[in-house]
Amino acid sequence: MTYKAQVTVTLRPSILDPQGKATHHALTQLEFDQINHVRIGKFIEMEIEAPSPGDAQRIAEDAADKLLANPVMEDFSVHVEEVQPVG
Amino acid sequence: MTYKAQVTVTLRPSILDPQGKATHHALTQLEFDQINHVRIGKFIEMEIEAPSPGDAQRIAEDAADKLLANPVMEDFSVHVEEVQPVG
Repeated sequence: MTYKAQVTVTLRPSILDPQGKATHHALTQLEFDQINHVRIGKFIEMEIEAPSPGDAQRIAEDAADKLLANPVMEDFSVHVEEVQPVG
Repeated sequence: MTYKAQVTVTLRPSILDPQGKATHHALTQLEFDQINHVRIGKFIEMEIEAPSPGDAQRIAEDAADKLLANPVMEDFSVHVEEVQPVG
């Protein structure tokens, strides 16, 4: 079975985010004064061949832990859903 | 009222994703052979001061359209929720 996994990787709250600060600054220049606390993370989509959603979830978490996220600085969350066959 | 907006920015399906290809290659080296079609996007979190969730949604979509996403190459989706007061 093919599953689609979405992995969201975010910086831990204690880690400074210069990219988020720069984006916030740019938004302020565009007069988005209502926006604060901008933080930038990564969003990774992938397809996983696995016998069950639980296996797909475990493979995605393992990949996030070993490669996609830096466990010292980043947190991640994984969402898995079945790929709908076309037609 | 303060709302938390999460903006997910993904490359359009027709756009090549060399970063995703490199990540897929690295996953294969780590023997994650069940994983395919890796695509990398951005995940932006921000706080928005707005009178209603609808207004917060509109502000976040406007910011994504004008700055966070490149409308030629990227799609985005916005999710807004109320910030729970601490305590």
